[in-house]
Amino acid sequence: MSRFWSPAIQSLVPYTPGEQPKVDGLIKLNTNENPFPPAPGVEAVLRSFDTERLRLYPDPECLALKQALAKEADLEHNQVFVGNGSDEVLALTFMALLRHTRPLLLPETSYSFYNVYIDLFNINARHIPLSDDFRIDLDDYCGENGGIIFANPNAPTSISLDLNAIETLLKRNTESVVVIDEAYVDFGAESATRLVNSYPNLLVIQTFSKSRSLAGMRVGFAFGHPELIEALERVKNSFNSYPLDMLAQQTAIAALEDHDYFKQCTRTIMETRQWTSTQLEQLGFKVLPSHTNFVFASHTRVPADTLMQYLREHKILVRHFTKPGINNHLRITIGTTNEMQSLIDCLRTHPEL
Amino acid sequence: MSRFWSPAIQSLVPYTPGEQPKVDGLIKLNTNENPFPPAPGVEAVLRSFDTERLRLYPDPECLALKQALAKEADLEHNQVFVGNGSDEVLALTFMALLRHTRPLLLPETSYSFYNVYIDLFNINARHIPLSDDFRIDLDDYCGENGGIIFANPNAPTSISLDLNAIETLLKRNTESVVVIDEAYVDFGAESATRLVNSYPNLLVIQTFSKSRSLAGMRVGFAFGHPELIEALERVKNSFNSYPLDMLAQQTAIAALEDHDYFKQCTRTIMETRQWTSTQLEQLGFKVLPSHTNFVFASHTRVPADTLMQYLREHKILVRHFTKPGINNHLRITIGTTNEMQSLIDCLRTHPEL
Repeated sequence: MSRFWSPAIQSLVPYTPGEQPKVDGLIKLNTNENPFPPAPGVEAVLRSFDTERLRLYPDPECLALKQALAKEADLEHNQVFVGNGSDEVLALTFMALLRHTRPLLLPETSYSFYNVYIDLFNINARHIPLSDDFRIDLDDYCGENGGIIFANPNAPTSISLDLNAIETLLKRNTESVVVIDEAYVDFGAESATRLVNSYPNLLVIQTFSKSRSLAGMRVGFAFGHPELIEALERVKNSFNSYPLDMLAQQTAIAALEDHDYFKQCTRTIMETRQWTSTQLEQLGFKVLPSHTNFVFASHTRVPADTLMQYLREHKILVRHFTKPGINNHLRITIGTTNEMQSLIDCLRTHPEL
Repeated sequence: MSRFWSPAIQSLVPYTPGEQPKVDGLIKLNTNENPFPPAPGVEAVLRSFDTERLRLYPDPECLALKQALAKEADLEHNQVFVGNGSDEVLALTFMALLRHTRPLLLPETSYSFYNVYIDLFNINARHIPLSDDFRIDLDDYCGENGGIIFANPNAPTSISLDLNAIETLLKRNTESVVVIDEAYVDFGAESATRLVNSYPNLLVIQTFSKSRSLAGMRVGFAFGHPELIEALERVKNSFNSYPLDMLAQQTAIAALEDHDYFKQCTRTIMETRQWTSTQLEQLGFKVLPSHTNFVFASHTRVPADTLMQYLREHKILVRHFTKPGINNHLRITIGTTNEMQSLIDCLRTHPEL
């Protein structure tokens, strides 16, 4: 703390990302990274890129990337926004679309960065508890509001809502923006992207960090009505005109265009998730039904933090949240089959399992 | 405009970056890009980078890059902040350090993005006119204030202040942060970096976009007391945890470490600037004394917008600002000697020159 700080930031509690250890030899199941490399076209971009062009500013509109995304989603490019990771897209969304007199509605348990934005931008918000089985019940999201945001599938619970439930919400909630954060949607859930043309208040946010294996390049995007996109562009152009560098734009396009590779990677992860869930259940875990590249599991006898520490001592990192209500669960990223075998093998050596 | 927009953004006037034309064959002297490619080590990074690593998140602390910058500046890494271009560093600085009850002091004519941040973050600000010869007089920056920011050299005027003037300001103004935006400092001006250890309220911001030929990769940085850096980290970690992708971090390190190439490029640009200024003066221009990679020039008879249009018709882009007081000047980036020869040749064909 310092007298030079802006007063508003003195009470901020920043988001805590999962640990990025600088030592090798760890099995890293703590930040929901994809175990597979990006599509081969990404390497081709790096190897053939005309380095001299880097002296120039990148396209501030990211038009080629927007066009590629629009084509995939069967939308127009003015229905697409891109940003420096979906975290930046979310930050700009909170500023541009979710800051109203009426309260923003969001789940009490969801991506914890939402609460950091609420603090940072001083947003009026109302948190709605999950059901006892960790589900979002959209019937609870009613009444006057200045916006609704939730992750689907939700994090860290891994549970998804089906599209009927979301469309029911959109039919009922027409006077404020509904933001659906689909960071994990490609691992078995249904995307609301195909509702974008029907609901002018729907914004769908996705990322290249998970299903596209490009966490290292920081590319996120959103689909919505051109008026919602314009609000995001306006705030983006008042904050940082060129958030995506040339290589981020080019590698994202390459990752997007390889449909077969994408399907193969996501299918393998879903199969490994099924295997992992079964193994964990056999060890006495209760595993929530996942549509993500992680599972959220609690053991019937052994506390989650004990298990987290035990795994860590054996060089396996998983994520544990101290938040009441979910502090007896572990969030375990689905890695390769070998990594998940190591996880299960390690848990089997625990004296109480 | 839409009822879904947050009310605060409805009156925003975003920054207008210089045009990034999508057609080839233009001589682009409008966005102060470096005419030379980045250091050869940058290409080596792209060609040898282990693409598989892109599946992982980048180091959110950017420690290797901070250490490289600290070493260059003879500082510690906790005196260094890095961001997604100096625009992001500036945006976070306005949020973290310049938002106080007392007014922020800044030049009436400077980098026009400052005023966008002032609007976006609703900052109390007082604009101080330049002198008649377009200079910043730091004696005017006195009295109670919540911070001071200016560019040195200033943009778009190209004129620099010497370090004595800046140190005099720092000795007098001890109760608020002084931010010096040194985007262009490597083209002949004196950096205030060596005052950082003496003045805990000094923040110096620089960029890889100009002298390092890496505009395409979006890397900016700041030097200051660890308490100022901590404020920036706190806001950054409340907005976007991972703003620099892996390749941005690696290419910046490669560009930084090639001292000879850096000296050669900046020296050549300064020599070309001298030649260009002399040629422009011979054509009847008044050219302000530049310590940047551009010149700011007005013709004694022909209006600036007429000349801008004429050059554009001949496929040469320069920047013209409509702001009163500087609307009869052109901001002309220093390109290669060939490009500047083409500029001069083209101007010579103008019927009134």
